[in-house]
Parts: sequence; structure tokens; C-alpha cells
Amino acid sequence: MSALYDVAAIGNAIVDVIAPAQDAFLGDNGLTKGSMMLIDEARAHALYARMGAAIEASGGSAGNTVAGVASLGGKAAYMGKVAADGLGKVFAHDMHAIGATYDTPPLSGGPATGRCLINVTPDGQRTMCTFLGASTELTPADVDPRVVEGASIVYLEGYLFDPNEARRAFAKAAGLARASGRRIALTLSDSFVVERHRPALLAFIETEVDLLFANEAELTALFQTDDFQAAVEAVRGRTAIAAVTRGAAGSVIVTPAAEHFVRAAAVDKVVDTTGAGDQYAAGFMFGLARGKSLPDCGALGSMAAAEVISHYGPRPQAPLAELAAGLA
Amino acid sequence: MSALYDVAAIGNAIVDVIAPAQDAFLGDNGLTKGSMMLIDEARAHALYARMGAAIEASGGSAGNTVAGVASLGGKAAYMGKVAADGLGKVFAHDMHAIGATYDTPPLSGGPATGRCLINVTPDGQRTMCTFLGASTELTPADVDPRVVEGASIVYLEGYLFDPNEARRAFAKAAGLARASGRRIALTLSDSFVVERHRPALLAFIETEVDLLFANEAELTALFQTDDFQAAVEAVRGRTAIAAVTRGAAGSVIVTPAAEHFVRAAAVDKVVDTTGAGDQYAAGFMFGLARGKSLPDCGALGSMAAAEVISHYGPRPQAPLAELAAGLA
Repeated sequence: MSALYDVAAIGNAIVDVIAPAQDAFLGDNGLTKGSMMLIDEARAHALYARMGAAIEASGGSAGNTVAGVASLGGKAAYMGKVAADGLGKVFAHDMHAIGATYDTPPLSGGPATGRCLINVTPDGQRTMCTFLGASTELTPADVDPRVVEGASIVYLEGYLFDPNEARRAFAKAAGLARASGRRIALTLSDSFVVERHRPALLAFIETEVDLLFANEAELTALFQTDDFQAAVEAVRGRTAIAAVTRGAAGSVIVTPAAEHFVRAAAVDKVVDTTGAGDQYAAGFMFGLARGKSLPDCGALGSMAAAEVISHYGPRPQAPLAELAAGLA
Repeated sequence: MSALYDVAAIGNAIVDVIAPAQDAFLGDNGLTKGSMMLIDEARAHALYARMGAAIEASGGSAGNTVAGVASLGGKAAYMGKVAADGLGKVFAHDMHAIGATYDTPPLSGGPATGRCLINVTPDGQRTMCTFLGASTELTPADVDPRVVEGASIVYLEGYLFDPNEARRAFAKAAGLARASGRRIALTLSDSFVVERHRPALLAFIETEVDLLFANEAELTALFQTDDFQAAVEAVRGRTAIAAVTRGAAGSVIVTPAAEHFVRAAAVDKVVDTTGAGDQYAAGFMFGLARGKSLPDCGALGSMAAAEVISHYGPRPQAPLAELAAGLA
């Protein structure tokens, strides 16, 4: 069956609140540069009060990836939970505005729409504190079978391994995708997620996942090693394709039979690395859904990542389809 | 008496909703490129639903100017009305985060916080549709005498000539400023504002204003002429200083005795002209409050405008104080 969507993604629906910060601000507020920390609503309010002037922009890892797929000219769908509040409306508007299918009903009477407070230091690194809010209230009922069965690739965000109901939603999506002959992709999302759920993630990868996205820290955490090459050997064969990003060093695509090294695309000035991994996944999956070779998929990923780190904000500003045309 | 603030501004407190748009979108929605149109809440909802994925950022003409003054290292204060809602909290947070004094109590039980829907076409032009909401509920009670009397320059936004109560707030601010020997600055804001209130604006300029900001369209509208030079002659002597911006052609500073021509600062690529006039005013007034010559004030204005048009969003991203150090 041909696919209605190149990518259907399930993730934490989050609005980003992005402000510039000096390095000292991180220390003063007990934040570790480059990390993602989960915080409760009270701490979110207290931290926001101390942050600089901010912009609000729809985010969420898989949401950003969906925006990248759409920007590349692909068809995309998203499933994720917001609240029936102002930020929830912003999130839904932005999904619909890029042409993505997004019909998850908003949550009433629960926590507010999730938000990620992002402090961007002058070196372009982002330090994230996330109040998950409504996003963790995703349940199996929010997984729309027509969307999952209609997608060339079903993309799951590792962050959702935390809440039990969301993990059941993943299992439902994986079962539906498998039965329809669709590919299942997973991003590990964060090395702390990996540490919290290592055995469950490994089991899920081996039984369900066709395409794994990870960065170096996440992959080495998954296999409890400090040796990157050892982690590459460990992942080989557990999944059909593992695409591992290494920042400025590019990415490595690992299959049972081969290893492809892909360069990072050139960037004049790194402004804000928010969303780099999400856009790499967008480019890679768009390429894969359209039948490109693995090195070409990696190059599309590098190109999309380079665009997003050259400006503030987690989603593409330039139409990626035009940049991709320049690669061909 | 020395001043607590370089600039205290009174304006419409607005949150910007900024999205890229194609030229055809403007025609399809009855919008005139480069214009600012006032819309009601129903039309604001309908237009937003058709717009592209957007970022939300605190804006408002005088609010942007205050952000520019703060970015230059100046002390600034703001008076303007938001509602007690999510966008209102965003606006207040951003004011406090830049170090500005902002204590106007939010409106309860009235319209929502004002918002400006900005469609930015590929040529960098912005087309604005503003739902003023709570911002027009500013009253004389919101004008804090300690702030007005403590400011080197009191800056008034022409947009507030529309609501009667706000115009009374202007009169109160002007009276307090005059009695304290403070300078009064006014921006004409928009050629439609000028057309709606020409006689009242002229009278206010002649009796109260020491420093007038206008762009070419606003100045020619004020004097009902198509001839720029005729408008310059007409404004000369009605106010001590008139600073008239002409986009890429730079600006002209008109005093009773002289005319200074100031070049626009170089910009690699114009991304979004939103806020250019606001930042020009910020640079100019910061210079004036710190005792710079008029040509130097104009150069500071040009520099601040150039920074803001080189990226999306109405407020500076780079610290203007560092850029200004490069001018000296």
C-alpha cells in the first residue's frame, strides 16, 4: 500500500521558551550546560522569572522533526498531547500551518501545556528545563490507527518512555505499524532517558525498531561503555539501521553489513543548536521514505541540521526543500 | 535633577505573532503589503488560522524601543496595558527580563492582551494586522508621575492617539514632563494614525513635543504633501528636533538651524524589517540622553535598526552596547 504520510510521529507536545543566557546564569541556577532536566510547574515558574526576554515557539523533539519533514516537502502527521489553553492553541496552529495532520484531542482539567525553558549560551549550546505538563497524558486512545497504518515511517520519541500510558501508546503504534508493513523509527532522545529505561529500550529496539536515531552520548549510555566504536559494534545488528550523530564530526550510519560516514554540513556561525538532532532525523527519514540511499539520507539530515543551528529556534526558517535541491 | 531613566515610554503593549508568508497570501486575505491594519478579535482569530507556523515575541512599537534602549545599556521604563492572561504574562516577563521598570497593573475582565499578526514576505517586508485588545484601556491613572519625572526623555507612541483615555494619559505625561524640565518625544507611528488625527497631532507637536520621529510616509501625510522636501520645510521649527527615517536611504535630522543627513548602516541581508523604526528611535534617544551630537544620535539609530532587520523579530538579539562600542 502506498503511504499517505512520509512520517507519522508520536512525541511530547511542547512549546519552547527560548532566551539568551550567560554561562554564569547556568551555575547560579544549578543547571548543567547542554543537559535536559525535567522540572515541576513551581520550578518552571521560578526559573522563567529569572530568565532573559524570550521568544515562544512550538517545539517538542518529534514535533520539530515533523516540521522539518514538512519543510522538505514531505507529508507528515503528529500525535501528542497539549492542554486546552493558550500555548496548546499555539502548538496546534503551528502543526496545521505547516500542513501536518494533527488531531490529538487537547486535555481538559489536567496540567497545562508542556513547555521547555531553553537558555542559550553565547557558544550556541542550549540548556533545557522541561515542564512536561499535559504532554505525558498521552494514552493509547490518542494513537490513530489510520495515521499509523498510512505512514511510511512511524517515528517514536524516546522521551515518551517515561509515562506508562505513553509507553503503551508506543506498543500500540508499533503493533499497528508492524501489521501494516510500516517501518518503525525510534530516537533515544536523551542519555538520562536511556539510563532510566535501558533494559526496556534495548528490548524494544531489538523487537520493534527498524531505524534508530541516537547521538554519541545516548548510544554509549545504551551500551554502558565509554568507547564509541564499541557502542557502534554493539548496536550493529540489533536494528536494521542506526544513525548516530556526532555534532561537528558528522554522523555514522550503521547497518549489519556496512558503516557509512557522513560529514556535517558547513555552517557560517552556530547560533543555537536547539533542534539539530530533530532536523537530522527529519532529513534522514524524508530521504528514506523517498527511496534515497543511506549516505544520501545522512546528507539530507546534515543539511537540515545545519540550517536549524544557524538561527535561534528549533524549527527550520528556510524552506528545506530548496536547500535539498542544492544537494542533488 | 539627574535622570533615573534615559527613556520612559508609553505605548500599546502588544505581543507579536510572526510568520513567513508568500506574496499571494497578502492578496488572498485582502492585506496591503507593508501596511498596519487594525482588526477585531474575530478577524484576528480567522487570520491566525490561515497564517503559517509562527513565533510569539513581545513587541509593541514603544516596547521594542525600550528593549533597544536597555540593550544599549540604558535605563528604561515602560507604561502600557496588558490583560491578566498568558500573553500578558509573557509581555511583563520580557520587560522585567531586560531590566526595564514596568508596573502598569494588568486589566481584569476586559479584552485579551493585544496581539499583532505579522506576515513577513520573502522581501523582508512586514504586513501587520493588530488586535489592540487590552492595550487601548490605558488611562491617566496608569501614568506613574515618579517614572515620568525621572526620565531624561518621555517617549509617546502615536498609536495611542486613537483611544480618548490614552490621549488623556499622554496629556498627563506631557504636563508632568514639562513641569520637570524633561524632553517629550513622539513617534507618528503610522500614516493612517496621522490621517485620523492630523489637527490634534499638529497641535500636540507644536505645543508639547521636543523630538519627533516619523518616516517619510508619515511626515508627508502630516503635511498633506507628496513632496518630501516640502514636508521637511514644514516640520522645521514646529519642534526642536525632527528625525525622519527613509529606509535604505538613511535618515534626515531637521532642526530650526540645520539639516543632518545620516546614512543607513550596512546590512548583509534584510530578513524582516519589523521594528526598524522602533530601534532607530531607541538608538537616537539613548544617544541624546547621553549627550551625543545629533549626527551621532542618528548613527546610533541606524546601527540599532540594522541589527534588528537582519533577523526575524522586533527586538535586538545582539547586545547593542557592543555594536555601539564599534561606532566610537
